[in-house]
Amino acid sequence: MSLLIHVAPGTCALATLIALEEAGADYTARRVDFAAGEQRSPGFLAVNPKGRVPALVIEDGVLTETPALLTYVAQRFPAAGLAPFEDSFAFARMQEFNAYLCSTVHIAHAHRMRGHRWVDDPDAMAAMQRKVPENMAACFDLIETTMLRGPWVLGDRYSLADGYLHTIARWLPADGVDPARFPRVADHGARMAARPAVQRALARESGG
Amino acid sequence: MSLLIHVAPGTCALATLIALEEAGADYTARRVDFAAGEQRSPGFLAVNPKGRVPALVIEDGVLTETPALLTYVAQRFPAAGLAPFEDSFAFARMQEFNAYLCSTVHIAHAHRMRGHRWVDDPDAMAAMQRKVPENMAACFDLIETTMLRGPWVLGDRYSLADGYLHTIARWLPADGVDPARFPRVADHGARMAARPAVQRALARESGG
Ligand SMILES: N[C@@H](CCC(=O)N[C@@H](CS)C(=O)NCC(=O)O)C(=O)O
Ligand SMILES: N[C@@H](CCC(=O)N[C@@H](CS)C(=O)NCC(=O)O)C(=O)O
Repeated sequence: MSLLIHVAPGTCALATLIALEEAGADYTARRVDFAAGEQRSPGFLAVNPKGRVPALVIEDGVLTETPALLTYVAQRFPAAGLAPFEDSFAFARMQEFNAYLCSTVHIAHAHRMRGHRWVDDPDAMAAMQRKVPENMAACFDLIETTMLRGPWVLGDRYSLADGYLHTIARWLPADGVDPARFPRVADHGARMAARPAVQRALARESGG
Repeated sequence: MSLLIHVAPGTCALATLIALEEAGADYTARRVDFAAGEQRSPGFLAVNPKGRVPALVIEDGVLTETPALLTYVAQRFPAAGLAPFEDSFAFARMQEFNAYLCSTVHIAHAHRMRGHRWVDDPDAMAAMQRKVPENMAACFDLIETTMLRGPWVLGDRYSLADGYLHTIARWLPADGVDPARFPRVADHGARMAARPAVQRALARESGG
């Protein structure tokens, strides 16, 4: 069976697309139309009751949550060597990195456009938006100085964490943060942008 | 080497303590004094620059992020069978559950006491607090109706996701949600509370 992934451009779904491309997977990407609110339509909620992308349809069901999709792709396509399952410390570092992106950095970013998740009051949403640049910069300071070993997140070994970092680092300008403040992350971004798999993933963000 | 885990009572560190107890691990739990702000002290920031618990000290370094610590404990103590590494779909479901708890449910809860992470304005913090009961209830509705298979999260197989769910479900009353609204989660909680490992983990939440 070919895999089906529900995506939208500019979202965290890019991380899973990069993993699929690195793995040489056969898959279809289907665009969810955020402008039309399709993520909250009954049709899409039947696929993913959370109303979010990415959602990956496999033989056994629908899987969600980026860190889970990433390790699933690595397990399904072991020849690509995308995760160090055999080295429990390296695997833990990768999981730690992915969990930090998912639970802290992605969430810091989401307070700019998705404030209605946590408040009903427009003034409070504006207060959240004001703090986004500071929070994103603090997250990337920590990544720059303590987490990104270089050249890849885990050091010499390329892994799932690299595509996920690149996905979120691409949000910095829109979040009001100058990426040049983080030279090691910027170098990482240049290395990522040069990878054919990343270029192919970007070309499929809008479906296809 | 015996493991060292930095904890605080009533926090998400309980999930990792439950995993360590289920695994029969030899470890020391050290309490970080939140009332005194110790998590932001230079001494603790040298351990975990994020200023949070849990932080697990192993031979190779310090590991953070609950989903990463959980799979690390399962890999280090394979005889306990705490994660279905051999079944990529079941492993993905467990990872999906843990990522949802970490990135959505824990974050919904954090808007009650830690609003200063995302806003500077006290009115906006109050606006966040008002929405916490609704958000936590929405998360637990989804868990109750679509995610918790029963008797355990993954069905017949007990896993890391069970201790993590129990940890966060224990926050419902303080978050203004009546746990009786979610009978399947409540049953799960009763089964968890009866486990000796869970009782031992609770006894060590304050250090020791
Ligand atoms: N924890 C999830 C978060 C997924 C998520 O928030 N996706 C966003 C795009 S980056 C989305 O679908 N938002 C649509 C909406 O909020 O309506 C993951 O890491 O996959
Ligand atoms: N994503 C982290 C979150 C850790 C976290 O937020 N821990 C809280 C306790 S539940 C903490 O240490 N808070 C202290 C503070 O915010 O000052 C994880 O899942 O382990």
